[in-house]
Amino acid sequence: MAHVNLIDPFDFIIFGATGDLTMRKLLPAFLRRFHAGEFTQDARIICIARSAHTPDKFRQQVRQALKEFAADTAKDTTLLDQFLSIVTYVALDATKPDSNWDELKDALKDQARTRVYYLATAPALYAPLCAALAEHKLITRATRVVLEKPIGVSLKTATQINDGVGRFFPEESIYRIDHYLGKEGVQNLLALRFANPALEKLWSSDAIAHVQITAAETVGVGSRGAYYDESGAMRDMVQNHLLQVLCMLAMDDPASLSADDLRNEKLKVLNALRPMTPDMVRQNVIRGQYTAGRIENKDVPGYAEDLGHDRATNTETFVAIRTKIRTSRWGNTPFYLRTGKRMAAKTTEIVLQFRPQVWPIFTNTPSPGRLVIRIAPDEGLSLVLASKDPGAGGFRVRNAALNMSYENQFTMEYQDSYERLLLDAVRGNPALFIRRDEVEASWRWVEPILSSWRQGLSPLEPYPAGSWGPASTRALLARDGAMWHEDMLT
Amino acid sequence: MAHVNLIDPFDFIIFGATGDLTMRKLLPAFLRRFHAGEFTQDARIICIARSAHTPDKFRQQVRQALKEFAADTAKDTTLLDQFLSIVTYVALDATKPDSNWDELKDALKDQARTRVYYLATAPALYAPLCAALAEHKLITRATRVVLEKPIGVSLKTATQINDGVGRFFPEESIYRIDHYLGKEGVQNLLALRFANPALEKLWSSDAIAHVQITAAETVGVGSRGAYYDESGAMRDMVQNHLLQVLCMLAMDDPASLSADDLRNEKLKVLNALRPMTPDMVRQNVIRGQYTAGRIENKDVPGYAEDLGHDRATNTETFVAIRTKIRTSRWGNTPFYLRTGKRMAAKTTEIVLQFRPQVWPIFTNTPSPGRLVIRIAPDEGLSLVLASKDPGAGGFRVRNAALNMSYENQFTMEYQDSYERLLLDAVRGNPALFIRRDEVEASWRWVEPILSSWRQGLSPLEPYPAGSWGPASTRALLARDGAMWHEDMLT
Repeated sequence: MAHVNLIDPFDFIIFGATGDLTMRKLLPAFLRRFHAGEFTQDARIICIARSAHTPDKFRQQVRQALKEFAADTAKDTTLLDQFLSIVTYVALDATKPDSNWDELKDALKDQARTRVYYLATAPALYAPLCAALAEHKLITRATRVVLEKPIGVSLKTATQINDGVGRFFPEESIYRIDHYLGKEGVQNLLALRFANPALEKLWSSDAIAHVQITAAETVGVGSRGAYYDESGAMRDMVQNHLLQVLCMLAMDDPASLSADDLRNEKLKVLNALRPMTPDMVRQNVIRGQYTAGRIENKDVPGYAEDLGHDRATNTETFVAIRTKIRTSRWGNTPFYLRTGKRMAAKTTEIVLQFRPQVWPIFTNTPSPGRLVIRIAPDEGLSLVLASKDPGAGGFRVRNAALNMSYENQFTMEYQDSYERLLLDAVRGNPALFIRRDEVEASWRWVEPILSSWRQGLSPLEPYPAGSWGPASTRALLARDGAMWHEDMLT
Repeated sequence: MAHVNLIDPFDFIIFGATGDLTMRKLLPAFLRRFHAGEFTQDARIICIARSAHTPDKFRQQVRQALKEFAADTAKDTTLLDQFLSIVTYVALDATKPDSNWDELKDALKDQARTRVYYLATAPALYAPLCAALAEHKLITRATRVVLEKPIGVSLKTATQINDGVGRFFPEESIYRIDHYLGKEGVQNLLALRFANPALEKLWSSDAIAHVQITAAETVGVGSRGAYYDESGAMRDMVQNHLLQVLCMLAMDDPASLSADDLRNEKLKVLNALRPMTPDMVRQNVIRGQYTAGRIENKDVPGYAEDLGHDRATNTETFVAIRTKIRTSRWGNTPFYLRTGKRMAAKTTEIVLQFRPQVWPIFTNTPSPGRLVIRIAPDEGLSLVLASKDPGAGGFRVRNAALNMSYENQFTMEYQDSYERLLLDAVRGNPALFIRRDEVEASWRWVEPILSSWRQGLSPLEPYPAGSWGPASTRALLARDGAMWHEDMLT
């Protein structure tokens, strides 16, 4: 059973508090942790945005949001009232020195309390916001700042943001959030690998023929169109989430679970990724954009129509990448990453395909076994092994799966990865946050791909909504004699 | 789905046909394979015993037995009638040269047909029976003989039987049956190991701390008391079944699945078992006998009472053995074998316990992971791994199991292992039968243990019915820092 440690009173200040993220993720996560008894009414959650709401009107809006996005917990109206009593609102334009800073100062009188600023604003505002906080003497020794992705749109802008924030906060107080690291299935990679020496014996090119990391969504761009069309799948998913999953999957064993030991090992993976030349981008990266199609028996429009644009757009909604990790552990194992919107199924998963038998002694051979690590929607593991088919006579083998569902064997404490991560930030546990050098190493690897694309070296390939991406995606693996998970026979 | 190959017409002759084995196992197995379409009414099953039954009266008895022991299949009375039409009975005392041999000769006129003699008699009769068959010219080129266990009660008697039978049959026509090799879970060891290179990478002392092989029954001696009290658990279970399972589990990869390639590898294991000195027997072997106790909430009597004896008996109903295999693959891995009657649960299973992490980085460490291969009652696999416990905060690990049940993922063709084995004997496929040198190597290893016991060097330890054996059984493993499966925490 879960074991909840009460946190000391804290101030949590959200900039950009009227946005979707605050309403759908941050406040629901806090409500659930409040319900779990992880903090008391001594805590304060100070929401800041430019809109001239009164606190009461804002709380009214939060109440509605919680009833929608934390419905189960918000049913308890006593609890909901208690929680809302610690939420307050300050109308403040942080870009203006003469804005309502005094009210925020008043709210943050207790200098000794843990103070966490959560910047849910445009990344361009991160550095100016930190400067303003410093100017108004709102940064104490016990202050941390949480930065939402994206940290920039390139190595240069990421470095600028890191420099700008770093002028006012030491690196150990900067918490770059990647909510994929809050997912149990991703964290479990550490346990699977470093608490199971038997499994770790398989964790190298000796046993693993290839690795697939897939993050597929069935939804389109939805209301995030303006942001997404600037960003694209590479910046929105690959540079951060997929590379972080890759790091957790591929890293060597850390000396301890301390934040820096973990992050040093992740950094090693990022630095070992084979850099892409323009030629390699053409051969190893596929970029796609969805056209109209059908998902779950419903017609859905193409990307441009989803955006509401008249004009065509060159933004990718799908990326597939074939890469290698230049280490003796992984050097012979291709890693395939892919992510896309409007795909055939919603799934986040890792597939480690085992090497085939060197000299098969059975008359038939099914496809080689594999370990499937499901991260979403249902967290779990499947180990697919060749087994004897108990048919009449003879000796035929066929694949069969050993399955484990997290939900069946554990009490799931968290409904959402923000629950874990927000409270980690309050507690001062940075292990599941991204260090500056990781962000920059990710951008360093991604940038040649983006740059090749800008030069028009890779075509944007269309794929119908409800498919698994452009047709060439299959060919990317076929070159290695491999196939994507959905194409494998059991 | 099962793929059944029709077998050419054959004659199958059972000596000792009025016994339990014929009624409970052999004829039900044939009925089911007849139902599956594996042979037609051209086949003949000739049952032989001394009793002066008429064929009709015998068939009547068989009909009753099939209704009890193959109830589902025997419901189809048309099928049952068809099957019974190929069953006949010859009253014959095979020890007497002037017995009813002519009738058997008449029944076996077709010299070209595959002919299989199944000796379900006392082992002392095997050689005389074969001599009689030869004398009456009843052995053709296409004749095989199936020998039930036990092949003797010692190396000497086994050699005598093998010599005696070998005088009339070439080794390739002698099918020594061990019904454990007919079990899907045992055969699947070959598929698991040699069709899954990833698993085979774990299959050595490098990854495996110890191996447990358990065959536990809840029943007592039942109606087999007279035989069992002469035999004991060592001769009844260890010398044959448990050592065969050990061979399938521990052998190196065979060059092919041919009978001799498989048996050469099994023989290598038997020859590599560390021979027991009297001192080693005292330290590594436990012999027990059940006393009165409770099983499944019912009081059950002790062994002596089960036998209906007045006198005490020195026969073991439980054996536990700690041994090693002297190869570079397995030399550092203790193998624990145990079998017993009136145990706490009915289970046949193999446990391969993984080595613990050399340098754990988690604050807590559950017991090391393991692979559990269930052979009976429900065939399947469980892989127990440490996983992250998705509890609040922190990073704790806890064991969780990936499970596979054969029944859920496959169509089970056979209800009983005799179905596969009998038809393999008819087909002339000896891969799942025991070669002479295997039998003798098994006895060679078992004999010093029996001999130490005869000299009274090991006490017979009592254990209450419904327990896991004598108390010292735990200590046998504790010495290695190990514990039996039922004592492990999840």
